[in-house]
Amino acid sequence: MFRNKMPRYEILSEDAMATLDAGWRRLVSEIGVEFMDSRARDLFSAAGQKVEGDTVFLDPEFVLEQVAKAPREFDLQARNPANTVHIGGDAMAFGAVYGPPFVRQGDVRREGTMEDFRNFSRLAQSFAALDSAGGVITEPNDTPLDSRHLDMTYALQTLTDKIYMGNVVSGVNARDTIAMTEILFGSRDAIEETPALISLINCNSPLRWDDRMLEAQFEYSAANQPVVLTPFILMGAMSPVTIPAALVQQIAEALSGIALSQLIRPGCPVVFGSFLSNIDMQSGSPTFGTPESGIGLLCTGQIARHFGLPFRTGGGLTSSQVPDAQAGYEAMMTLLPTFLAGANWVMHSAGWLEGGLVSGYEKFVIDCELVQMLQHEFTPLEIDEASLAFDAHTEVGHGGHFLGAMHTMERFRTCFYRPFLSSSENYERWMRGGAKDTAERATEIYQKRLEEYEQPPLDEAIREELEAYVVRRRAELGD
Amino acid sequence: MFRNKMPRYEILSEDAMATLDAGWRRLVSEIGVEFMDSRARDLFSAAGQKVEGDTVFLDPEFVLEQVAKAPREFDLQARNPANTVHIGGDAMAFGAVYGPPFVRQGDVRREGTMEDFRNFSRLAQSFAALDSAGGVITEPNDTPLDSRHLDMTYALQTLTDKIYMGNVVSGVNARDTIAMTEILFGSRDAIEETPALISLINCNSPLRWDDRMLEAQFEYSAANQPVVLTPFILMGAMSPVTIPAALVQQIAEALSGIALSQLIRPGCPVVFGSFLSNIDMQSGSPTFGTPESGIGLLCTGQIARHFGLPFRTGGGLTSSQVPDAQAGYEAMMTLLPTFLAGANWVMHSAGWLEGGLVSGYEKFVIDCELVQMLQHEFTPLEIDEASLAFDAHTEVGHGGHFLGAMHTMERFRTCFYRPFLSSSENYERWMRGGAKDTAERATEIYQKRLEEYEQPPLDEAIREELEAYVVRRRAELGD
Repeated sequence: MFRNKMPRYEILSEDAMATLDAGWRRLVSEIGVEFMDSRARDLFSAAGQKVEGDTVFLDPEFVLEQVAKAPREFDLQARNPANTVHIGGDAMAFGAVYGPPFVRQGDVRREGTMEDFRNFSRLAQSFAALDSAGGVITEPNDTPLDSRHLDMTYALQTLTDKIYMGNVVSGVNARDTIAMTEILFGSRDAIEETPALISLINCNSPLRWDDRMLEAQFEYSAANQPVVLTPFILMGAMSPVTIPAALVQQIAEALSGIALSQLIRPGCPVVFGSFLSNIDMQSGSPTFGTPESGIGLLCTGQIARHFGLPFRTGGGLTSSQVPDAQAGYEAMMTLLPTFLAGANWVMHSAGWLEGGLVSGYEKFVIDCELVQMLQHEFTPLEIDEASLAFDAHTEVGHGGHFLGAMHTMERFRTCFYRPFLSSSENYERWMRGGAKDTAERATEIYQKRLEEYEQPPLDEAIREELEAYVVRRRAELGD
Repeated sequence: MFRNKMPRYEILSEDAMATLDAGWRRLVSEIGVEFMDSRARDLFSAAGQKVEGDTVFLDPEFVLEQVAKAPREFDLQARNPANTVHIGGDAMAFGAVYGPPFVRQGDVRREGTMEDFRNFSRLAQSFAALDSAGGVITEPNDTPLDSRHLDMTYALQTLTDKIYMGNVVSGVNARDTIAMTEILFGSRDAIEETPALISLINCNSPLRWDDRMLEAQFEYSAANQPVVLTPFILMGAMSPVTIPAALVQQIAEALSGIALSQLIRPGCPVVFGSFLSNIDMQSGSPTFGTPESGIGLLCTGQIARHFGLPFRTGGGLTSSQVPDAQAGYEAMMTLLPTFLAGANWVMHSAGWLEGGLVSGYEKFVIDCELVQMLQHEFTPLEIDEASLAFDAHTEVGHGGHFLGAMHTMERFRTCFYRPFLSSSENYERWMRGGAKDTAERATEIYQKRLEEYEQPPLDEAIREELEAYVVRRRAELGD
């Protein structure tokens, strides 16, 4: 997996950090955080925190004590050990887009289907830049609502051998996901020993954790599976319009959720989550790849490190409706700061389009190119005497060229990043090739990848057991 | 103008800098640098440097003594004082694309004309993100070769009131440009006192300065007008394939050119130039917006600061043939590191397409959006108690929204960057508006800008004198 050994780009001064620190303390203690599940409130109450109605007023020192119980970093196992990832430290793991109800293929935008879900899973398996297909890579709208989590989990488990995410729609769904993961990895002990599922728990920002998400959190944390406690903040709507206020709220929300996980099972793995952008104040539309989201992203990394926690943020976000120039520059505007911040778990790394409403086939390919370019860019230079190539200058001389130099011949295959999508063809050659723009080339690439896709091997007995589980549970759920 | 008060992102360790430092010293002293103009060689010889044939073998300490004479930063005056820029320190000045023989308008790619040159000048005047139209914003191929510098300079002087660049095709052209600038600013003294022209002197890398560029350099440096001494390096062709080797060569070339300027006129303003990317090792095509160019760019900033010099690098570079997703992500892949490095003079900030062969109207608009977004992003946050908006939380409560909060109402007009090109319209609205992608919207924007363009006022006597100069010189040059 990729490890980012380049420096972090940090923009908050010590004074700024101190101000933010005072800010979240005041929020959790004076405004408090709502937990819409009595089990959560009971745990906080039993631990000495003040509870009024659904609101828990938290002592900041208590919160920090809980946070201190969380591991700084941890492994997340894949069924193919070569694809096991590490979450935290300098490790960066990349998962595909999560959540879109629609898909876009070329000029067609339509509801996502289970076959789209499977196709995106195959693509995520195919692209080395990705560590995971994620979870809800698109909503499979042609499957029954109550049981689709079974089909999705089965697809993630069988079509990929990379890590995958847990379903969080309800406690029931979480239990099913865990049960299927126990089957895949052999036992409950196997996945409690080394977690095998990572799950997204979104805050209903501002300052409210909803009941269904909490149900799922209870299941996953109890099973020692990491949860990503994520304030869902579009500044101007779910937080005040100032970035510092959004950062303070983000800390308050993330840490309160993390504290709950530590009450459920002390020492269970958690991730400081961030999904931070802003709305267009004229239309109210969410916007992505904005300057504000870039700043928020850089600050989030620094804040998470301040609390010693692995963190999730970033991705290839864009508001654009199609995989055009805006989609390209907004995705890069998010992904490059993702690397500068050293995000540990990068959701939405590939396929995000139209503010997250659409999983785009072409955009998926584009983003994989971007992630791979940046993985290359954020690999430290080796600078030593040999790298200076003095002899090549002796060989080539003034005004010459290095194409045929010995030093070049020895290195030309590997010296530069080789794009699979970007074109540097000269105009005549590009015209002869059909004058295809990036999106058209991306179409060809994903189609070829799907044609050439090979399902990773899985023990047939395990596959049958998984299938039997899906069939039985689907019947029980009435679908 | 924009000042970048954010931290610089530096990736070279002290050890790495020391290795690079040893490298350029060895290059200039053992391989030497070719100067294809006897006046240059005579100056070096008179200053005690060894000259053999066209090659000058430089004592590194001598080079550094010359470099130390250059100003660390300086002003560059525009005829509208509001548009005067500062070069160096935390100031960043942005000029449009420089050099393309072709233009692209929508689906049409054709040779550039004088009317295109004028149109791009008008656009550069129109967009606040740009400090300059640059110089050769496109080659006006429908004008005579010998006298087109007169028409170009006249256009830059009259259609914009921002700073502009000097013609460097020959000493004759440079003298004409200086003479016209003296007319515009009133006298030779006026522009020697505060420079009013910045000019690009490219190295014929590796390690050769050509005669025509040197002729221009002699004119500009003697007139105290800044020159940008720029190694022109596509790694693999004009330098070895390793980035450290390219960096060392870049230092050797830039500093040798700067040393010459200081011999011509001690204390004259200079800029450490960088144009550093790589070729595709399979096709030999130049590539831009690559990981290697991003790394080179970051290192260049650090190196220029090491020598205490203002520096030029960056821009909205791309290999893409059209303003598509690749054009967007490669431009951002170059522009974001441009800001991270804090480049002082950013050429090619708007309009660059197809590896610099094409000035794109749509790409021009796209890049202006990117520069403006990044200027916004690289403005430090103000983090204080008031910015935390505690009262807004009291007003809104858990799970509420901030759209109507007092804190929001007071700030909604200015709180976030407002794009002029990017769209966050929802799908239905976007479809009703004609489903225009970024390039189509950019077409509408540049057309509207050209329609609404107003020529900045200029004293009629000065304009007539400039025109008379152009007419007279064109006749003398036989066109």
